[in-house]
Amino acid sequence: MKHTFKQLSTLLALLLMVCMVSSEVIAQQSLADVKKKRGLTDDDVLSAVKTFMPRGGRDEYFAFVGSGNSGTMVVYGLPSMRIYKYVGVFSPEPWQGYGFDDESTLMLKKGTNDNLLPGYGDMRFPALSETGGKYDGKYLFYTDGGNSRIALLGLDDFETKQVLMHPFFVSTFPGVAVTPNTEYVIHTSQFPTPWNEKIASVDNDYESTFKSGITMWKFHDSEDAAGTGHHIGRLIKEESFTVELPPFTLDYFDAGRAASNGLVVGLASFKNNHYVYVFDYQKAAKLKTTKLNDMALVSTQDLVDAGAFALIPIAAPARSVKTDPTGNFFITAADEAQVFDFAKTKAALDQKQFGQAVLGIPTLNTEAVQYGKLALGQKVMDIAFDYRKNVAYASAFNDKKIVRWNYKDLKIESELALSFRPGHLMTPQGNSAEPHSNYLTVTDKEGLYDKHINIGPTRPSYQHLIDISSDEMRDIYTMSIPQSNLYGSVSVLRTTIKPIIRYPLGTNTRTGEISRYRTVAGQEKIEREGNRVHVFGTLIRSHITPEIVEVEEGDVVTFHLTNLERAEDETHGFTVSTYGIHGSFEPGKTASLTFKANRAGVFPYYCTEFCSALHLEMEGILLVRPKGYKPSPEEAKEAALTPQELEQYKKNYEDKIKVINETQEVINSVVAYLKENKYEKYPYVEALVVDAFDQLEQAKTSKANYERYAAEGKWRDAFLWAEQYWQYQVKTADVGLRAKKLLSELINK
Amino acid sequence: MKHTFKQLSTLLALLLMVCMVSSEVIAQQSLADVKKKRGLTDDDVLSAVKTFMPRGGRDEYFAFVGSGNSGTMVVYGLPSMRIYKYVGVFSPEPWQGYGFDDESTLMLKKGTNDNLLPGYGDMRFPALSETGGKYDGKYLFYTDGGNSRIALLGLDDFETKQVLMHPFFVSTFPGVAVTPNTEYVIHTSQFPTPWNEKIASVDNDYESTFKSGITMWKFHDSEDAAGTGHHIGRLIKEESFTVELPPFTLDYFDAGRAASNGLVVGLASFKNNHYVYVFDYQKAAKLKTTKLNDMALVSTQDLVDAGAFALIPIAAPARSVKTDPTGNFFITAADEAQVFDFAKTKAALDQKQFGQAVLGIPTLNTEAVQYGKLALGQKVMDIAFDYRKNVAYASAFNDKKIVRWNYKDLKIESELALSFRPGHLMTPQGNSAEPHSNYLTVTDKEGLYDKHINIGPTRPSYQHLIDISSDEMRDIYTMSIPQSNLYGSVSVLRTTIKPIIRYPLGTNTRTGEISRYRTVAGQEKIEREGNRVHVFGTLIRSHITPEIVEVEEGDVVTFHLTNLERAEDETHGFTVSTYGIHGSFEPGKTASLTFKANRAGVFPYYCTEFCSALHLEMEGILLVRPKGYKPSPEEAKEAALTPQELEQYKKNYEDKIKVINETQEVINSVVAYLKENKYEKYPYVEALVVDAFDQLEQAKTSKANYERYAAEGKWRDAFLWAEQYWQYQVKTADVGLRAKKLLSELINK
Repeated sequence: MKHTFKQLSTLLALLLMVCMVSSEVIAQQSLADVKKKRGLTDDDVLSAVKTFMPRGGRDEYFAFVGSGNSGTMVVYGLPSMRIYKYVGVFSPEPWQGYGFDDESTLMLKKGTNDNLLPGYGDMRFPALSETGGKYDGKYLFYTDGGNSRIALLGLDDFETKQVLMHPFFVSTFPGVAVTPNTEYVIHTSQFPTPWNEKIASVDNDYESTFKSGITMWKFHDSEDAAGTGHHIGRLIKEESFTVELPPFTLDYFDAGRAASNGLVVGLASFKNNHYVYVFDYQKAAKLKTTKLNDMALVSTQDLVDAGAFALIPIAAPARSVKTDPTGNFFITAADEAQVFDFAKTKAALDQKQFGQAVLGIPTLNTEAVQYGKLALGQKVMDIAFDYRKNVAYASAFNDKKIVRWNYKDLKIESELALSFRPGHLMTPQGNSAEPHSNYLTVTDKEGLYDKHINIGPTRPSYQHLIDISSDEMRDIYTMSIPQSNLYGSVSVLRTTIKPIIRYPLGTNTRTGEISRYRTVAGQEKIEREGNRVHVFGTLIRSHITPEIVEVEEGDVVTFHLTNLERAEDETHGFTVSTYGIHGSFEPGKTASLTFKANRAGVFPYYCTEFCSALHLEMEGILLVRPKGYKPSPEEAKEAALTPQELEQYKKNYEDKIKVINETQEVINSVVAYLKENKYEKYPYVEALVVDAFDQLEQAKTSKANYERYAAEGKWRDAFLWAEQYWQYQVKTADVGLRAKKLLSELINK
Repeated sequence: MKHTFKQLSTLLALLLMVCMVSSEVIAQQSLADVKKKRGLTDDDVLSAVKTFMPRGGRDEYFAFVGSGNSGTMVVYGLPSMRIYKYVGVFSPEPWQGYGFDDESTLMLKKGTNDNLLPGYGDMRFPALSETGGKYDGKYLFYTDGGNSRIALLGLDDFETKQVLMHPFFVSTFPGVAVTPNTEYVIHTSQFPTPWNEKIASVDNDYESTFKSGITMWKFHDSEDAAGTGHHIGRLIKEESFTVELPPFTLDYFDAGRAASNGLVVGLASFKNNHYVYVFDYQKAAKLKTTKLNDMALVSTQDLVDAGAFALIPIAAPARSVKTDPTGNFFITAADEAQVFDFAKTKAALDQKQFGQAVLGIPTLNTEAVQYGKLALGQKVMDIAFDYRKNVAYASAFNDKKIVRWNYKDLKIESELALSFRPGHLMTPQGNSAEPHSNYLTVTDKEGLYDKHINIGPTRPSYQHLIDISSDEMRDIYTMSIPQSNLYGSVSVLRTTIKPIIRYPLGTNTRTGEISRYRTVAGQEKIEREGNRVHVFGTLIRSHITPEIVEVEEGDVVTFHLTNLERAEDETHGFTVSTYGIHGSFEPGKTASLTFKANRAGVFPYYCTEFCSALHLEMEGILLVRPKGYKPSPEEAKEAALTPQELEQYKKNYEDKIKVINETQEVINSVVAYLKENKYEKYPYVEALVVDAFDQLEQAKTSKANYERYAAEGKWRDAFLWAEQYWQYQVKTADVGLRAKKLLSELINK
């Protein structure tokens, strides 16, 4: 029996364990119900929990992917796979007024040869700016394969800052790479064409007239002398150069890093022969140049003579070539991947150990510069790098699998079978010296097999998230991305990017300069010169000032608007009914909207972005007088008020002054608390307080105005200015109260 | 001891239970790790599992939401909250070539007064088409508050089919409603303005010159005589009418249903006085009309005399008014919600039980037509209906809560405290006679409180998903929606919509007709008339035909392209390098792209949508000859081949014929299997077989060509046509094999 009691006590111990996990088990009841109801497996539950983002949660990474042919950039989060933004880059984007306001339109037009506005862009492989081979979170670059353009985006506000059209490339590879300190941004041709608007026969003149080329765009970061945190770098055409090459079709390329800094490797083909090209841009930068359409041009002969360019023959076409994180190897994405040794390649190039030339370009001996090779699968589309040393991933399209392999040992480590045909790959920071690789994204564009929801003949692309944090790889999320034809993406640790919340007041966000049209409260005005009307207006909850604008039919009208807000996420939009124009005004931004008032009538204008519960009050009226219109005598009396009306305004004014005094008391008590508790020791609280004082500063003019009008007995104007003053006061109180709340939390921590 | 043994056996039974749940417990180990690592609560886990969509999973509902000011419609799924599509409606959308190809551009231009292309649209409250008061899944309607437009979208292909500009409204309410059988689509003004390009003083002429109005757009569904499943209805201006009203500012409105069919209720205000208007459109439809800009107009006086319009005074402004699912009540979204009785209201209107008129419009006695009222909270923004009888939800913005209440008992049932300020609400099918309400969506646009991720000054809107399936409401997902300023949404059971997969070959998808530019394989051609060049081309994996097009600088060129594919998700895109044009061609679609060839040179054109692993081969070349260019004698020899080249082509041809014969054997065996197993009994299999034969039918011309060229010894042409024939064969084999696989699965079920 003793034995039985021992058993019993063991069982009791077990029971205790059961009790200990019982709350877990009870919670699981409900989980089990949901699982059953929704037909989910245990694996699904784990995937759900790995990707779910609770309210207020922050993603680990920002990911950027070109939307293919819509000309916009998609920003999403890992691991939530939620899409945060579509940013207009190569095509107009009405939500943000991109290609609608004068500032962005001017920028887009500068990026064309003919001052027209291309509405389309083919964006595939973006690149993030680097410092010392690592992502610095400052800029992102894109090329437009459809229209030979290159774009610079600032990541402090996720806006496009520069668009340039290539001065003579007709067809460009829709991808870009940067050198390890972003000294240069690399941009190549894709299909060979004649340059400079020449015509030629594809059959007879091909080798003599069709060309390919590589452009090294010189990049300068901004100084940010103003200390605003708002950086605007620039691609400088005058310091850039292009190397001229025979008619190779160029494909994916990458820059060297660390020991291989100074080299670029890429894919080239000619008549079914395939190569990896090696380009020493540091040598090329020292060569003499001629000019073509104002761009410095290095001749093929000079390039070859300097030992700055050669081809490595490869047996079969590769679909990508990438530099590994260390900068020691470059590797082709091919069914049999080839790992090349950068040091050997550089030595062979420097020593001109050349074999037979192709179209005048010397070749290197493939075996001599190759480290090794490994068969990975059928139709290998792409490779991506792991933080694990010498480990990479490959996607085998036909085999429907992901292969994890070691490119130094030349061994396959493991494979993940997929339910779809995988395309391009991305690991966070994988194209830098510092890959983070908890996650791998894989594109899935093969909709033939009815795996996705039917939403009519046009379908989104899909991006899968693979959990690669452990030895076992797991496909944990299938994300649809609308308006896109997915290729490459890049991703960076979220905290590496330092987004701003507001602009210095009056910023032209495309140039980073304070706009000459910056308008502060109380200085709103309408200026006219002939048929040209400039409206200098302001936007602040919940008023558009001025509230009435009168012009004549045929006038060309520009609304120069400044958003006076300092609060977070206080964007105002602006449109004039039926005039088809739209602007987006983030806190501090000044932008201009120009249109021809070609229809007479009355046209309401209003704020188009929900900005507060009083959003609908942000409206005004544009009166477009018919040509030659004379106001009737009745209208001339417009300003006159009846004594009853004047009395009513006086009462309104006096009521408002009472409210103003009460609000001021609240502000005073908040200010006392803040000072007493040394708010200036807490940077975020201090920023709020500065913001609050800024509001009050702007309010001074309003106060002077209402006091003056009251003294003159002009009660309507006095009331309207008192109302404006109170608006500022409320905002000051609002920001102040938030600062107080935050401060008390910090103190009581 | 017996007792002890009994205890023991009880414990053993418990132990058995532990064993039974042990696999669950083990799986939970890993779940627990992830929970801990990611800081998730039990509630988070449950939310994750309620919304996670495994690969291949299907959402229960399609939801549609206007993107506010980007002019596009967003389609997403419930409960996954994944975004499937942005559909171009009021503004050009380059991914789908919307506003780029001639067909959609013509449609958009028809929807303006001045043949210009507004690039912007302000879309807030959509409506789905109804049959018998229930959603029929066929159409969706939208208005553009910024430019007074109305749009019709077809839900069989999720494309915009019609855009009209209102003939005289300047400012329109950015929302729409339909009558219970979609006889009419209702569109009202928002801010009062003069009509017909008149100018007036806001101070003196307001009541006499400023107007508001309601337009009843007559809608006709298409007959679909061709049986394609591709419906294209139309709004018919000639059968529509507008009622003229004094200068009320009009807001949200809804149509009656069931017993209240024939009425429209909406919000109106004038000088801080607030009303619900009641409009009997069936009475109004019988009144005499005049014409304004070709639209029938009913005068205010006639409307009032007929007892077809009246106002119900309400004490405070409401933010919405909605008809309940039964059609017995209409309810205001206000801090104190008012429930009105439709029957009493209709009786009062019919019997003209009028009180004092406002601007000439009679009023009804509020108490006489009101059923009851209930205080719901501070700043109530919206209401939505439940499938539970007489139950509705309200969002209280200032109170940060959702209130579930019974509008017949006038009692609050429960509340859900939120972490944000709620805006507009939506339950699936909630605006119909048949609400489904497992879910409630709530907009969240208040970014002031730093709850969301910082992605720079411009932020997305957020939509929350609330689980309301049980007594306890739960906030289970926070979704970001980029490029949007969220207001209303509508949602329908996914299976109610029957999306097509392909179009009848040669369809102009905007009109639903077979395009006059439809081109089938083998009939590609280039026609020239003066400086006007028409290219009749085809797209099919992996060729664009023709592959070379030569024009002269200054020519106006149109590519009329037809996608010959019949397979699912086989969209091809098309662009010409640096010409900034872009088209999207879904299977069967014909569309035309017109541009002026204003730059000489060589311009590659290519497919812009990943369509197969051979996608990059889909390219061709546009040669734009400089004006007056004469080809050199060398170029005239272009067609001549050397004997060696000819011999090579002959060999290529013979190799290809072998492959063709092998492929044919595969096809024959598949066809035999299909016939033997009576494929025609299985509709989906039969559709695939028809598709497969369709491919072969198109291939006949290619076969005739290669045989003819081979007989003539023209081996290059013979090889190229044999290659083309083989492309068709492969597709036939591909579709056939899928049909065979499906058939064998069905037989063995």
